[in-house]
Amino acid sequence: MTTQEERDLPYDVFSRACPSRGTLEHVTGRWGALTLGALYEGRFRFNELRRRVDGVSEKMLSQTLHALERDGLVHREAQPTNPPRVDYELTPLGREVAGRLIALIEYLEGSMDQVLAARERYDGRVA
Amino acid sequence: MTTQEERDLPYDVFSRACPSRGTLEHVTGRWGALTLGALYEGRFRFNELRRRVDGVSEKMLSQTLHALERDGLVHREAQPTNPPRVDYELTPLGREVAGRLIALIEYLEGSMDQVLAARERYDGRVA
Repeated sequence: MTTQEERDLPYDVFSRACPSRGTLEHVTGRWGALTLGALYEGRFRFNELRRRVDGVSEKMLSQTLHALERDGLVHREAQPTNPPRVDYELTPLGREVAGRLIALIEYLEGSMDQVLAARERYDGRVA
Repeated sequence: MTTQEERDLPYDVFSRACPSRGTLEHVTGRWGALTLGALYEGRFRFNELRRRVDGVSEKMLSQTLHALERDGLVHREAQPTNPPRVDYELTPLGREVAGRLIALIEYLEGSMDQVLAARERYDGRVA
């Protein structure tokens, strides 16, 4: 439920009561970020997605997908086949969000030499 | 410690053994994201930062700052005053990373009306 008061407030993740903080956590949480990143590549069935997001458990992937679907970022489509086939894909909003997340992920992947060098300096200093 | 093998691999957050996954988590974790977002506005002392990142405990902020400092994203500077004054600011790398994170946060904040409407539809459907 959303109260009218929440709607009138400007959204601000720095404020602990703002609902945008929860959505940020769904998007950037360990499995949320990887799930959105995977779905940016296309539509996936549950088990395909589970293989792509290396290390995720069935339960965690299921919870992650529910939260992203509830926030309107992921669309779940059950095909009327037998057995039913369920596909997941990004909504237009999810695509915008995932694109910005991918930009961050790619920048980090491209900076890992710098990050690992910084870690070695830090660990040498505090050892 | 970083092994030579890690250095030769392309970095890929989707791979569970890749060190980039840990850095992504430091950057996008609940407190990491808000801390980087706050520091994007300027340098902060510890207690100023704690007020800005509404809801963070002293212990969690301290752990968050250590992880970000170790990854080379945050610079900690102790002034030789009495009592010592400690400032935190982003490194150039941290600024690049935080800029991309802010783009994501601002997009989410600007999309919260859509997110909340999606939640109401979802909750109405499953209730």
